[in-house]
Amino acid sequence: MSASGSETVRSVGETEALRRFLPHLPAGDATLLGPGDDAAVVSAPDSRFVVTTDLMVHGPDFRLAWSTPHDLGWKAAASNLTDVAAMGARATALVVALAVPGETPVDFLVEFADGLRDGLAAMAPGCGVVGGDMSVSGTMTIAVTAFGDLEGREPVRRSGAQPGDVVAVSGVLGRSGRGLDRLFAEGIDEVGDPSARRGLELRHDPDVLWHLAPTPPVADGVLAALGGATSMLDLSDGLALDAGRIARASGVVLDLAAEALGGDPLEALRGGEDHSLLATFPRGAVLPGGFRAIGRVLPAVGGPRVTLDGEGLADATGWDPYLRWSGAAG
Amino acid sequence: MSASGSETVRSVGETEALRRFLPHLPAGDATLLGPGDDAAVVSAPDSRFVVTTDLMVHGPDFRLAWSTPHDLGWKAAASNLTDVAAMGARATALVVALAVPGETPVDFLVEFADGLRDGLAAMAPGCGVVGGDMSVSGTMTIAVTAFGDLEGREPVRRSGAQPGDVVAVSGVLGRSGRGLDRLFAEGIDEVGDPSARRGLELRHDPDVLWHLAPTPPVADGVLAALGGATSMLDLSDGLALDAGRIARASGVVLDLAAEALGGDPLEALRGGEDHSLLATFPRGAVLPGGFRAIGRVLPAVGGPRVTLDGEGLADATGWDPYLRWSGAAG
Repeated sequence: MSASGSETVRSVGETEALRRFLPHLPAGDATLLGPGDDAAVVSAPDSRFVVTTDLMVHGPDFRLAWSTPHDLGWKAAASNLTDVAAMGARATALVVALAVPGETPVDFLVEFADGLRDGLAAMAPGCGVVGGDMSVSGTMTIAVTAFGDLEGREPVRRSGAQPGDVVAVSGVLGRSGRGLDRLFAEGIDEVGDPSARRGLELRHDPDVLWHLAPTPPVADGVLAALGGATSMLDLSDGLALDAGRIARASGVVLDLAAEALGGDPLEALRGGEDHSLLATFPRGAVLPGGFRAIGRVLPAVGGPRVTLDGEGLADATGWDPYLRWSGAAG
Repeated sequence: MSASGSETVRSVGETEALRRFLPHLPAGDATLLGPGDDAAVVSAPDSRFVVTTDLMVHGPDFRLAWSTPHDLGWKAAASNLTDVAAMGARATALVVALAVPGETPVDFLVEFADGLRDGLAAMAPGCGVVGGDMSVSGTMTIAVTAFGDLEGREPVRRSGAQPGDVVAVSGVLGRSGRGLDRLFAEGIDEVGDPSARRGLELRHDPDVLWHLAPTPPVADGVLAALGGATSMLDLSDGLALDAGRIARASGVVLDLAAEALGGDPLEALRGGEDHSLLATFPRGAVLPGGFRAIGRVLPAVGGPRVTLDGEGLADATGWDPYLRWSGAAG
């Protein structure tokens, strides 16, 4: 092992760990002043900026037995970039705050930074990391706040869907949940705890890899806004629950077509963390990018809700992987 | 106890807990679109924005035995607002992400929100909270990201101090450290663990209250920029360590006058978390707001460093309260 391989956040100190972490991250096209002062300065060309914040906590949101540091950095990029994209904005910058156990190797942080860098390069080239913070904690926690530029457009909200609109999605449905189901079922040891060895063996499964480090269609957010999307959000909690949010915010029914949801519509409705984009477009609009029609918007007769081929869903089961696991294990 | 008093984050769920938390927070003058969508939209009138992010972790950064939820909200506001102020910017908005144990009462979150609201109203009226996230974690963690507007000015960096400048400070020196020293010495039980009862008794001491919920001179950041400050930062890690950061970034010596540092210059040099503003101004400038001269800037003969009445400091002892306590206690 190299000299740096034995260094931990505790042995080098939090300030030094942060100093080594940040240079692995891209500066970004919108960065006017990067890390190193009390605050950074970011360009906001249209005199507004979009902002979203997201926590990833060990236990509820990821397992170190299954996720590599590179996976975690990549997924932190993906989940925040899609929130910016779902407003119809182009991601410009983000800040990242890490709370990690003192015994965390500095190399872990560097690999996390490399995953964040690679995720940004793949999904939002030009988006930089302008600042960070690091603290010691018994529970690994990743807090990312991301920024975007609306380029003069109005934000695409959840509340604009109109009866007659087409419901469309860009990206996969249920794939991340299928991967996590497989990890829950097979990525465990004899007593049911997450197993690093078993998790590694399961990485040949594209569904498992998608769960650990997804590549959602971030660029389609701007394309949807340019294409006239009337509402949009990113699918983090599953299609049924997230479509219900558009239905309630817009005061409409979203009627989905089972045949458009793949071989297992219930899996597509339930599975979370795909970070695909769900949007509505005016009838007759040419669907942009990777968007495909999966339903239509109807008046809210009987109240705003989601239906499948005209039938109400038995329950709007959402995504809560935490419910299945104790916070203490793995 | 009221019905709501028995509710916890686990019993109501994280989404519902966040939904109850956010309405207690101010909307803010710069908020174009607040919480409730995938992202918020904030005004950035001069086409740039200032951004800083900061973590507060139970153990290293606060003790629930000593800090009330209202204290924590207030201090989260103070520590982030001064980072924005130290760039010479006016704070416009912030986002807050909370990771809390599942058994945390919803009332705790509401009191935290009230502290954040009161701190913003006292230190940065018009600054709003535009978004949030909530997750369950074994370790309470508060992640705040704050934004500011430069109002057409250039940011005041750490690197602009020039030989001949006056070194000045606005706010107290060593007071927060003195309060924490007292909590460490007297706010404990028979076996040395933090004691809520003893901590409560010590709140009559203004130093202790200042440590738990400081009110630094946030408005003086903009006044310093308007008054021609050549460099500035906020004193989070103690005067000796933070002054050294300006010295190194600017390539100068900061020579401080012991007689300007109060009755106990070493306490003033060492104590952290006052969040006072340290700045340099051109010789002859009228010091704005609450700034008072405490030294002068000299050429870096012998290398950039901090001196006291011309003598090098024995060591640049900084602020690391975590070193004194295990993460497990209290």
